[in-house]
Amino acid sequence: MSHTPVAIIGAGPAGLTLSHLLHRHGVESVILESRSRADVEETVRAGVLEQGTMRLMRETGVGERMDREADIDDAIEISIDGRRTRIGLTELTGHHMAVYPQHEYLKDFIAKRLEDGGAIHFETTVDDVTGYDGDEVTVTYTDASGAQQTLTCDYVVAGDGSKSPYRTPVLELDGAVRDRHEYPYAWFGILVNAPQTQKELIYGTHDNGFALISTRTPTVQRYYLQCNPEDTVEQWSDERIWSELHTRVDSEDLQVSEGEIFDKAVLRFRSAVTDPMQRGRLFLAGDAAHTVPPTGAKGLNLAVADVAVLAPGLVRAVKKGNRDLLDEYSALAVPRIWKAQHFSYWMSSMLHSVPGDPHFQTRRRIAELESVLSTEAGRTYLAQQYVGLDLPRFEI
Amino acid sequence: MSHTPVAIIGAGPAGLTLSHLLHRHGVESVILESRSRADVEETVRAGVLEQGTMRLMRETGVGERMDREADIDDAIEISIDGRRTRIGLTELTGHHMAVYPQHEYLKDFIAKRLEDGGAIHFETTVDDVTGYDGDEVTVTYTDASGAQQTLTCDYVVAGDGSKSPYRTPVLELDGAVRDRHEYPYAWFGILVNAPQTQKELIYGTHDNGFALISTRTPTVQRYYLQCNPEDTVEQWSDERIWSELHTRVDSEDLQVSEGEIFDKAVLRFRSAVTDPMQRGRLFLAGDAAHTVPPTGAKGLNLAVADVAVLAPGLVRAVKKGNRDLLDEYSALAVPRIWKAQHFSYWMSSMLHSVPGDPHFQTRRRIAELESVLSTEAGRTYLAQQYVGLDLPRFEI
Repeated sequence: MSHTPVAIIGAGPAGLTLSHLLHRHGVESVILESRSRADVEETVRAGVLEQGTMRLMRETGVGERMDREADIDDAIEISIDGRRTRIGLTELTGHHMAVYPQHEYLKDFIAKRLEDGGAIHFETTVDDVTGYDGDEVTVTYTDASGAQQTLTCDYVVAGDGSKSPYRTPVLELDGAVRDRHEYPYAWFGILVNAPQTQKELIYGTHDNGFALISTRTPTVQRYYLQCNPEDTVEQWSDERIWSELHTRVDSEDLQVSEGEIFDKAVLRFRSAVTDPMQRGRLFLAGDAAHTVPPTGAKGLNLAVADVAVLAPGLVRAVKKGNRDLLDEYSALAVPRIWKAQHFSYWMSSMLHSVPGDPHFQTRRRIAELESVLSTEAGRTYLAQQYVGLDLPRFEI
Repeated sequence: MSHTPVAIIGAGPAGLTLSHLLHRHGVESVILESRSRADVEETVRAGVLEQGTMRLMRETGVGERMDREADIDDAIEISIDGRRTRIGLTELTGHHMAVYPQHEYLKDFIAKRLEDGGAIHFETTVDDVTGYDGDEVTVTYTDASGAQQTLTCDYVVAGDGSKSPYRTPVLELDGAVRDRHEYPYAWFGILVNAPQTQKELIYGTHDNGFALISTRTPTVQRYYLQCNPEDTVEQWSDERIWSELHTRVDSEDLQVSEGEIFDKAVLRFRSAVTDPMQRGRLFLAGDAAHTVPPTGAKGLNLAVADVAVLAPGLVRAVKKGNRDLLDEYSALAVPRIWKAQHFSYWMSSMLHSVPGDPHFQTRRRIAELESVLSTEAGRTYLAQQYVGLDLPRFEI
């Protein structure tokens, strides 16, 4: 039986960032991850880093490869029926964003944690977590060799994603809620061997639906098309995909670049917020607590924002025995989560056509886009939310 | 049988402003109004003038009393559960707005038109309008004495409000549409003999619903409470009204001022846009073409904006035989109407609680308000739409 101040379930953005931040303040932790290291590092995921996330990486010594390799976005474009308007992120906010896939983020943090002597147990299944209402938490798990282990800790953090079973005890608390929203659309995503259509992301709206033109590498492009949540990959032939992409995005001066499609997948759109995100010595972070639709690219960044509150809270509690900040974790993290939910919902609602929507709502939606795009105040309001709020900072 | 270049049905904001602008460019018109002059001038109506409307009044010699008597709004306040945030309109946009009731606006334009020798026939019922698809329009009407009259004209403009029968022929055109939206709430409006609660308007949101604190004169206040569209005046006792106003708006430093309630009424919330707004020699302007809910106070201002396109179009057509601008009337006027519809819908949606709305939507809505109010870009985006776009200007 071993002991650690903080046990962390899940080596995702929340868990790894937390473990790294705790270490920098002299608090050790153990990460328990069910997948293998290769699986975590090689599952290809989208990722856009907010300015605050980039800054945290740089300031804590994990930003070197990101600064060298990430695609920097100074602007995005929004297209209405092929008419594109540029939103100069850097010009409007002083910040930019980085396209840096989530698995690359995870690779950097895993490498750094291991270099710093951190404990990450891969291929480890947590069997039970008890004692979070008392003075000490006990985590039982089965390790990679199949042996059952017991770990005691002062605090346990669930960063194990949207299917986390540790929401259940939190939601048993009086007044605890999980607010959800299901969207009437989804994204059909493809990966293509093709040259860049253009450097900047294009968020396009059209009577036929939304389309997103993004770039993964100079020779691999990531395109998305709004589809029905019930659609299957089989319903989208290559021919249909290219026809819809050209219809929704092309204009006189721009044509979506084609190539071999080597991946097709349907992404569901869901929003959920759990409040509070803690019970006794148990804390939820990242997707374990909340889900955002992909439109705003806020998922990873919200996990980092949670941890920017949780890490100093845990450091104060472990090193000084002061739980003030830890007790305020949910109250401090939840307002930012709702703002990100709103932003994701707003971008989604402005850019997607809803099948069966009254014509009034379609015209109003386009008038809203025109109001945002035609004024500097509107573009700035959007750009500031896109690049993200500053991360909170707390004295330890 | 008499002839006029332009016959105008309705002595409302659209008709009177149009007749005045035409006269300034040497085009005469005849206004036919079913009500008496006293009825038009004395039916008390709310009114907030956008910066563009104020400017048009001043530049065309009708702004003198408005400049002397109107309450100037340099700011509004938005309150969330009693926590108020100031939106400095003048500071953020360089403009302000004027609280100037619509019947005062009408009085000024009626006086000016009559002083300039304009023809306004009150208590006159239009019986028929024919010929708008041909070379000349014929308007038959019954005058104040009960005699039937015939007026021929080159163009006829329907500015006779939301129940205008002249939408019907326009909507018979191929592709013509009237897009509508019904809101799940209404306003309960009261007039009160009481001192001002405060100088600036307060738009308040609360779990119980919306409230608006506005001022008519230093001793008469106009308050509104969100209510059910089916509510009747009888369901709102004075006691219930005061209780709800205090609950929704009061805070430590502010209390809604009470007094004798001398008027109670339920205002329905509706949006509608007719597109196009013309057929041959027949044109729709103001509420005859479109309806906005009261939240954005855009009704009168949109009528003025219509006329800012229609007047130069008619002047060019009548004086130069050039219909280019007149033919583009709908295409030029409709985008602004949709932006105003969006603004009114957005303000309404952000500030009203919808009975039965999922908790997700309530939290998201408050997060949206916080996002707007907490940033200068958000406040500016709102303020610019509140004070209104500049009116279009065309060479004659």
